Amino acid sequence: MFRRRFRYLPLLFLPLLLGAAEAGHGVPPEQFFLVLISILVFGKVFGELAERIGQPAVLGELLAGVLLGIIPADGTMREVIQLLAEVGVAILLFEIGLETDLKEMFRVGPSATLVAVVGVITPFVLGFLYWILVLPDIGTHAADVTDTMVAIFVGATLTATSVGITARVLTDLNRIHTPEARVIIGAAVIDDVLGLVILAIVSGLAAGAALSLFGIAMKFAVAAGFLVAAVIVGNLVAPRLFGLIDRMRVRGVLLVSAFSFALLFAALAALAESAMIIGAFAAGIVLSSTNQFDLISERIEPVADILTPIFFVSVGASVDVSLFLPWSESFNPSVLAVGGALLVLAVIGKVASGFSVGYGRNKLSHLAIGVGMVPRGEVGLIFADIGLRRGILSSEVFSAVLIMVMLTTFIAPPLLKVVFRRAAPPLESEPAPATEEAAELPAASP
Amino acid sequence: MFRRRFRYLPLLFLPLLLGAAEAGHGVPPEQFFLVLISILVFGKVFGELAERIGQPAVLGELLAGVLLGIIPADGTMREVIQLLAEVGVAILLFEIGLETDLKEMFRVGPSATLVAVVGVITPFVLGFLYWILVLPDIGTHAADVTDTMVAIFVGATLTATSVGITARVLTDLNRIHTPEARVIIGAAVIDDVLGLVILAIVSGLAAGAALSLFGIAMKFAVAAGFLVAAVIVGNLVAPRLFGLIDRMRVRGVLLVSAFSFALLFAALAALAESAMIIGAFAAGIVLSSTNQFDLISERIEPVADILTPIFFVSVGASVDVSLFLPWSESFNPSVLAVGGALLVLAVIGKVASGFSVGYGRNKLSHLAIGVGMVPRGEVGLIFADIGLRRGILSSEVFSAVLIMVMLTTFIAPPLLKVVFRRAAPPLESEPAPATEEAAELPAASP
Repeated sequence: MFRRRFRYLPLLFLPLLLGAAEAGHGVPPEQFFLVLISILVFGKVFGELAERIGQPAVLGELLAGVLLGIIPADGTMREVIQLLAEVGVAILLFEIGLETDLKEMFRVGPSATLVAVVGVITPFVLGFLYWILVLPDIGTHAADVTDTMVAIFVGATLTATSVGITARVLTDLNRIHTPEARVIIGAAVIDDVLGLVILAIVSGLAAGAALSLFGIAMKFAVAAGFLVAAVIVGNLVAPRLFGLIDRMRVRGVLLVSAFSFALLFAALAALAESAMIIGAFAAGIVLSSTNQFDLISERIEPVADILTPIFFVSVGASVDVSLFLPWSESFNPSVLAVGGALLVLAVIGKVASGFSVGYGRNKLSHLAIGVGMVPRGEVGLIFADIGLRRGILSSEVFSAVLIMVMLTTFIAPPLLKVVFRRAAPPLESEPAPATEEAAELPAASP
Repeated sequence: MFRRRFRYLPLLFLPLLLGAAEAGHGVPPEQFFLVLISILVFGKVFGELAERIGQPAVLGELLAGVLLGIIPADGTMREVIQLLAEVGVAILLFEIGLETDLKEMFRVGPSATLVAVVGVITPFVLGFLYWILVLPDIGTHAADVTDTMVAIFVGATLTATSVGITARVLTDLNRIHTPEARVIIGAAVIDDVLGLVILAIVSGLAAGAALSLFGIAMKFAVAAGFLVAAVIVGNLVAPRLFGLIDRMRVRGVLLVSAFSFALLFAALAALAESAMIIGAFAAGIVLSSTNQFDLISERIEPVADILTPIFFVSVGASVDVSLFLPWSESFNPSVLAVGGALLVLAVIGKVASGFSVGYGRNKLSHLAIGVGMVPRGEVGLIFADIGLRRGILSSEVFSAVLIMVMLTTFIAPPLLKVVFRRAAPPLESEPAPATEEAAELPAASP
């Protein structure tokens, strides 16, 4: 995730971070502290700047990641931060699950499924056809790799949706409770299930396996089945479990239990070969119906405030800035051009998915839903990374895909802000964001 | 810290943890999640059990660590948990600093200093004399190591005090605001400063350096100077900084700033060759006088609820259970006997420090202060570890020291509970522990 081939140093704030570069084996705690501080402080400062110019805070956190990402970090440090980032995104999805009303989700279920399916098929077909028809001449791939395989892989990288980015933007914009947001979150979760299936197919292809319809069906059944089973079993177990926890006296037991519950579901999802964030989301849905819901929500928030920025900063840090800098070795105009073409297809394919559904108050809400599906974020990076490591994508094609992934992630927050402002005003019942600032500065909401 | 030579498997809960043992290079997130869950859930369950039998919760967390510690973990996983544990103890000391009234601290300053100095000198002299006079015949050391050097090292390992354990027990017992607690915390912090000096001396000795009085004075000046400078500079900077932060709007900015402030002071302390926990404690003292104190306190608590148990569980995990098991290879009755002798000296030496001071309402409060200084915790382990690695302590002597460190840590919580119940009733002004349970179960306080 933290790939970088290049060191770009003239930063004012570098002294704070130099420690990170010097780390040998075994990370000294003070270096870890400094890296953590840098991530959090940069994240907040850039988040604040983003809000000041009317953009969602998450855009600032991504940018902070880009800046921090150009500073090389030792392997173990990277791994530690990456693990914390995984906890961060799990807790984010858990929080979103907590705020999700299962009945409302069922109501938008058919729309969300349609959006997800169209949002996977359209970009895949567009990407596949573009590659087969245009056959962009950038870099050469291995002899045993056919153009069809490359085209399938490129198409696959266009299918992902980063539910994390969109959910965070909708929260930043105070629109997470709108019907459009529910469709988007539902579709993004389904998209993750579909993504797992696609991942299995392309990984199989990369390993030279024949496509087995049975294998695909199994993969799909496991991924979808996990979500359903988790919610059903969770709803049976959680009330008793949290009733028991309610009778415990030790400090922090409710928070620790909820936190562990979220991570447990995430880990189980991974062990069931589903996606961790699906598990965390399911855990949130389950706990949203317990009696302790309010307290859990209130106590998990500060934990999320510390952990989720680590995720977004680390997504930003995976951006390879050198692709855009004319004076760098990695700069290649034709890679940029192919990346730009993929970006256009990526946006068209996902926006089309929004229009596939008859749901919504007016035409613009289709656009809002479509735009909400645009960011590829970390999910797109995972696909691209597999392609590169298996030798299917040449490093040039990988770079072009990377450009598409990065740009969809970065353009989504401002675009979402625009379309949501016009399409979906915040609901009247919308609760104010429960931050410390909200308590003190009631005028500060956007 | 996680030393173990031995695998003891018949545990009911093992399935959850097996993942940890299998990890290769690069820790899969789901394994990290499972390890984290195990630490948190075991910590809470054992903490609850401890409270149910009338003991401080931290005792349960330490025991949970002992159980979890016998499960082997991959190197990177260990390192990640260790780093989080360091964050945990830093945040714990930060919280204690937040609740510390600087004026009150100054008032107990002379008493605390006396307790710290006597509490370092007495155990050192006792340990040194014991070794020189008895010369216990367990294991042989290298030819170039004199008995005097071993005696100095053994004496040094007796001097440490784990402020973390005691502070946590006092919080668990709802006695953190008593005058005795202030003396103990003050003395334990000064003890850390002295400990750094002793560490420098014994490390120098171990490396074969001559004792330089100037070097010792410098080390002392740096460690003490850092604490004073941090509080003074912090008090100048913090009000402006947090005034600025107050005007920021982005979610969680106050919490993230306070958290980063604590870690920054901890890291600066380490970079100034002082102890991280001193820096974190200073950060807490500084922020306790800001306008945002209440909000910071409230928001940092859930973060501490997640992070501090990791520290105590990991301290517990460093216990080598095999030393106590007759059927294990490491079992050695003479090592146990020497460890027992050291334990007696360790307790006498620290309890004596409590009687060195004329402070307190009645005789028993001397005992409370003395007992509060007993746990060696992680600080004692660090000393012993250096001795072992430099070849000064044979593995048998190291084991004996380890037994002393472990037992002082484990007997302190129940002892403290007894002496504090008799010596220092909770102050009338004592705020109730701000847990979720406190809000729901007013009858649950001990």
